[in-house]
Amino acid sequence: MNLTERLAAQPMSNPRADRVKDVAGLAGRSARSKRGLFLAEGPQNAREALARHLESPCVDAVYVTEDALGRHPDIAALLERVAGDRSVFVRLVTREVLAAMSDAVTPQGVVVVCPSLDVAAEEVLAAGPRLVAVLARVQDPGNAGTVLRAADAAGADAVVLTAGSVDVYNPKTVRSTAGSLFHLPVVVGADLPELLRAAREAGCGVLAADGHGDVDLDRLQDASAARAAGAEGVDAVYDLARPTVWLFGNEAQGLSAQEKALADHRVAVPVHGRAESLNVGTAATVCLYASARAQRRGADRP
Amino acid sequence: MNLTERLAAQPMSNPRADRVKDVAGLAGRSARSKRGLFLAEGPQNAREALARHLESPCVDAVYVTEDALGRHPDIAALLERVAGDRSVFVRLVTREVLAAMSDAVTPQGVVVVCPSLDVAAEEVLAAGPRLVAVLARVQDPGNAGTVLRAADAAGADAVVLTAGSVDVYNPKTVRSTAGSLFHLPVVVGADLPELLRAAREAGCGVLAADGHGDVDLDRLQDASAARAAGAEGVDAVYDLARPTVWLFGNEAQGLSAQEKALADHRVAVPVHGRAESLNVGTAATVCLYASARAQRRGADRP
Repeated sequence: MNLTERLAAQPMSNPRADRVKDVAGLAGRSARSKRGLFLAEGPQNAREALARHLESPCVDAVYVTEDALGRHPDIAALLERVAGDRSVFVRLVTREVLAAMSDAVTPQGVVVVCPSLDVAAEEVLAAGPRLVAVLARVQDPGNAGTVLRAADAAGADAVVLTAGSVDVYNPKTVRSTAGSLFHLPVVVGADLPELLRAAREAGCGVLAADGHGDVDLDRLQDASAARAAGAEGVDAVYDLARPTVWLFGNEAQGLSAQEKALADHRVAVPVHGRAESLNVGTAATVCLYASARAQRRGADRP
Repeated sequence: MNLTERLAAQPMSNPRADRVKDVAGLAGRSARSKRGLFLAEGPQNAREALARHLESPCVDAVYVTEDALGRHPDIAALLERVAGDRSVFVRLVTREVLAAMSDAVTPQGVVVVCPSLDVAAEEVLAAGPRLVAVLARVQDPGNAGTVLRAADAAGADAVVLTAGSVDVYNPKTVRSTAGSLFHLPVVVGADLPELLRAAREAGCGVLAADGHGDVDLDRLQDASAARAAGAEGVDAVYDLARPTVWLFGNEAQGLSAQEKALADHRVAVPVHGRAESLNVGTAATVCLYASARAQRRGADRP
């Protein structure tokens, strides 16, 4: 059955159907982990999931309203391209069914069901990553998603969540990634000491973002700019152009003393005003962009 | 009645008392605007509100549980210092009363009632600001709070919300500022063209954060670093060390064409990975930190 036939069929209209309940159930962590599936909601996630699916299968099912198809011709075009693929189940649904499937307060017309995407840490490290963001026990779904999106924007090679972190497949996290979950490899449930041992063997330095850290990020950036400009004998405790794993801590308590001790340096993002600290999304953005800039400059070095 | 006497009195224990309903009512925008009051919840906000109150009165009432007082001796000490001030009403409350007053899912033991703090744009501009963040029709309470906190951390002189933005006194916004609302002047309900006209008269340049902008933020930063290092004839369309007003747009649609046209330049934060864009909190952080760094370097210039 091609897409036209599928979409010509009557839309699913019974919000109490078993399939609807199955999809809605993926809002819960235990159902997700038992079934190895998660929900990606909204046009941005649908677009990125389908685009990735064309390179490497990652979509199980797509439920979409007629309205949403009309509003997003690019998604309709992507659906057309995956329609030949029997492994993807595509169905038109009524607004009521979509609302029943969705976890969002304001459902946005399309819900995609995907198998879990996380990969093993070994796989990420074997690829020789230059920039990796590690979330150590970050609890807030929105924060985790924001860091993932910022890591993607900064061109990071992977994001790692340690054991005890929020579930990266939480619908709120997935929504706040705005599709970035489909852009870069994600590792979950990592043991931090083990991960860092392996990352060092793969040639990475390790920096901890720490408001009370003794190394100032601006100094590292200035040193990196001076080095790139050809200055000799630049003195800095760490070369930001190196392959780097950044550690970001829990939003309430930050990194623990043990977690900080695992890093080569504890780096503070300068706070110029009277704010006591930055939130984890903000701090991660500044740190990852600082590394990305230094690395891109470093790549131009003779 | 001093603090000891006040706190020795029986805690307020009736969650249905009129005073409790009055406080809880401040979760609603119309009650806030009618009464000119807002809620600041949690220890971080309480601490910053009370610290500011000692310099310039901004606290009407404090409701706190015995538990929270025990957990936060610094707040107890601050309350001791404001206790002589008859204008501040301080009462011990039971957990049930605190929960009834609070808007938070997990109330944190202390609720402060404050009069609105916003100031007129003229006042901000008369002080000769060097860095101002303008939120143009930002709708999400958490995003607005995150930008306010990032602006504080970057050392901005003020934050402005245009007409049609989320209410800065929304309890969710106040919570996500983590106290920054008490650190820097906030202007609300601004008319954008009028504000920018006055800001230019006060010597400010105007930059719009725009993912599709034709000016690259990294280039401006490189030029600023080169200039600070004494390079001659540095060519850049805008000197980041100038006093600057940054415009940040609505999270879904970004800045409108008219809003963008009001700026001197439309500046893109580089996106290195495959993320389509940054969220407004992330973009604002990168832009404001870039200006802050250039201005601090500029201040050292001979």
